[in-house]
Amino acid sequence: MELFYSSDIISDTVRLDREESGHCVKVLRHRVGDAVEVIDGEGGLMHCTLVDADPREAVLRVDSREDDWGALPYHLTLGVCPTKNLDRFEWAVEKATEFGADAIVPLIGDRSERRVFKPERARRIALSAAKQSLKARIPTIPDARPVRDFLAETRGLQLIACCFDGSDWQRVSMRAALESAPGATEVAVLIGPEGDFSPEEVAAAREAGFIPVHLGSSRLRTETAAVAAASFVYYHFL
Amino acid sequence: MELFYSSDIISDTVRLDREESGHCVKVLRHRVGDAVEVIDGEGGLMHCTLVDADPREAVLRVDSREDDWGALPYHLTLGVCPTKNLDRFEWAVEKATEFGADAIVPLIGDRSERRVFKPERARRIALSAAKQSLKARIPTIPDARPVRDFLAETRGLQLIACCFDGSDWQRVSMRAALESAPGATEVAVLIGPEGDFSPEEVAAAREAGFIPVHLGSSRLRTETAAVAAASFVYYHFL
Repeated sequence: MELFYSSDIISDTVRLDREESGHCVKVLRHRVGDAVEVIDGEGGLMHCTLVDADPREAVLRVDSREDDWGALPYHLTLGVCPTKNLDRFEWAVEKATEFGADAIVPLIGDRSERRVFKPERARRIALSAAKQSLKARIPTIPDARPVRDFLAETRGLQLIACCFDGSDWQRVSMRAALESAPGATEVAVLIGPEGDFSPEEVAAAREAGFIPVHLGSSRLRTETAAVAAASFVYYHFL
Repeated sequence: MELFYSSDIISDTVRLDREESGHCVKVLRHRVGDAVEVIDGEGGLMHCTLVDADPREAVLRVDSREDDWGALPYHLTLGVCPTKNLDRFEWAVEKATEFGADAIVPLIGDRSERRVFKPERARRIALSAAKQSLKARIPTIPDARPVRDFLAETRGLQLIACCFDGSDWQRVSMRAALESAPGATEVAVLIGPEGDFSPEEVAAAREAGFIPVHLGSSRLRTETAAVAAASFVYYHFL
């Protein structure tokens, strides 16, 4: 099954952009009358018929539409500090999308080596990974913001992965945290930079209702920790 | 914490090869008398003292030794068909190592596009990932073999991930399979090539005692499925 993406949907007419049109008409050689599936990136899958096989702007007619197509039974927001090596972060975006993350928020932590992040490439990777893994919803990747600004933006079960315990608190495993809130379908997980979160950031997160968690005894790279968090939530709802 | 690796350990004398010696003496600037941690790749961690800071062949004295250091409470064998794009397979080797795989066996399936695989690069990646994630045991990566030859090599809970059900059998989720065998600490998971396993391969695997499993509704790439399987087992024992 091949999915196309369009943001140009007016009533029952869908237009594909140049890249998607070329892939549809030149690469996959679709012809007028062919059935083609298109996602709107917000959960909608449209069963369409190709009516104009223009390789620069293909036009399709919507025959039927399904909402929340391919949706998983939870809403996962990952707040992740982008790694110094951007390839590793972009790899995490691809994999977290495959594991059903709904939002991947680039964060700048007190100890982040990368303090500037441009999300355009990551957004293209998320779009491609969503189509490949059969999802009609593409994870949102907003502009980067400081960890502290992000703390007020999340709801539901809020977890912060860090590598240390406090004098008056101890981390629980992410599994224990997920299983302690069986009804929670809205989950947010914070993943820090290579140098971890600062004690002040974890204190602010606990203040905001986040539960400090560990991801086990293996020392995971930042991008592996982000994918681990996404795969753990995916598995928890499997 | 920084780990070094040596295969040249005679009684209480450890020699580092040229690469590890350079990293120890030139990059990290260790001097005679410094405490240095060395793994033997088979579960042993040696607390050593640097006695000869030769940047081509550093020599260390073993002060004490810990067996099964950093070991996880399970033994995971991943049988994975290498992807056409080797970078993706090597990425899976790095991440599966971080998630504690003990053996990563390259398999050639009926539908494998890649029918030849040289394990040298993957072995170097596994070594580096084991040191980075604080493990004294480096996953073994044997030479590639056909899927059918591998079926007789595994023990314990044996799972095969595939994308179809049979006429007289249905896949269960990998979570259901793991939870159906709470006592099993020896787990083997088979991950097929881009084109999935053939019905004949799955039949042979079922014959050999493998349980067909699915990894959820998301269509995961081969390398993502391999990392998913490793992360699911890691989470199951978290």
